[in-house]
Amino acid sequence: MTETNWLSDDERVAWVRFTAVLELLPPALDLQLGVDEGLTHFDYFTLAMLSEAPGRILRTSALAARTNATLPRLSRVVSRLEAAGFVERAPCPEDRRATNVSLTEAGRQKVVHAAPGHLAAVRRFVIDQLTPEQVRQLSDISAAMLQQLDPEGRMLASEDLGREEV
Amino acid sequence: MTETNWLSDDERVAWVRFTAVLELLPPALDLQLGVDEGLTHFDYFTLAMLSEAPGRILRTSALAARTNATLPRLSRVVSRLEAAGFVERAPCPEDRRATNVSLTEAGRQKVVHAAPGHLAAVRRFVIDQLTPEQVRQLSDISAAMLQQLDPEGRMLASEDLGREEV
Repeated sequence: MTETNWLSDDERVAWVRFTAVLELLPPALDLQLGVDEGLTHFDYFTLAMLSEAPGRILRTSALAARTNATLPRLSRVVSRLEAAGFVERAPCPEDRRATNVSLTEAGRQKVVHAAPGHLAAVRRFVIDQLTPEQVRQLSDISAAMLQQLDPEGRMLASEDLGREEV
Repeated sequence: MTETNWLSDDERVAWVRFTAVLELLPPALDLQLGVDEGLTHFDYFTLAMLSEAPGRILRTSALAARTNATLPRLSRVVSRLEAAGFVERAPCPEDRRATNVSLTEAGRQKVVHAAPGHLAAVRRFVIDQLTPEQVRQLSDISAAMLQQLDPEGRMLASEDLGREEV
């Protein structure tokens, strides 16, 4: 444990503050969606990613990449969303070992209903607190962290990170 | 749902990337501490905050402010850490309605043992991926979010945020 391994004052303040954001932001997003829509933020994100896909259908592996989830975690959430009538699962016609997840009409309506309130929360807690320059900084900072958090680039958010040097 | 409420391209990219960090970073920190020490990141943070307090003792309310936790959440974690022998609870001598949490010698040794590996993970996933300028940007960005996430300034990380304009 030499001195050089510890955080500098600047690094320590940044980490203490960022840790607080990591603790407080996800529950704040979950609370708004939970109270208003009976969804977690991850539920919403899953439905939203399906709603933006062509034909509102994705293979499980592609949906996992878009939601930054492991397959076991996604599987649990999809089972719950299927029981609620928001999604359906079916074998993929092109590859019987793969499973497709599709958004139902009820799921589509749920996303449309939930989107404005969720967007308002994202603006209130994150975007509207930052200057346009800080939004770009947060984008670059997040991209830098994703290089380590997702080194194989499996997640959709990691795409195009090679262009960060521009 | 007017056009003006939706996110701009810059905002959307930043949010998609930052959402991925919110999903991937906490499990990455939990995994390192879990495999190496049998602790969650929140367990470690709780022990570390106690280890830095004068006399290694804090009232429950002060410990909650330092760990960005609600009292019910903190109470569950402290019960678990107490069962493991890392902390002790006792009524506060100055205020019998309040509870003090103190770090045991076993808890102190646990923090000392766990700190280097955790610090290496924080460096690997966050600090060492950023330039010194980005570390300061992340600090300011986190401070801006905390103004909304912790509007009453209850959390320790929210202290001195009024000085951000300097």
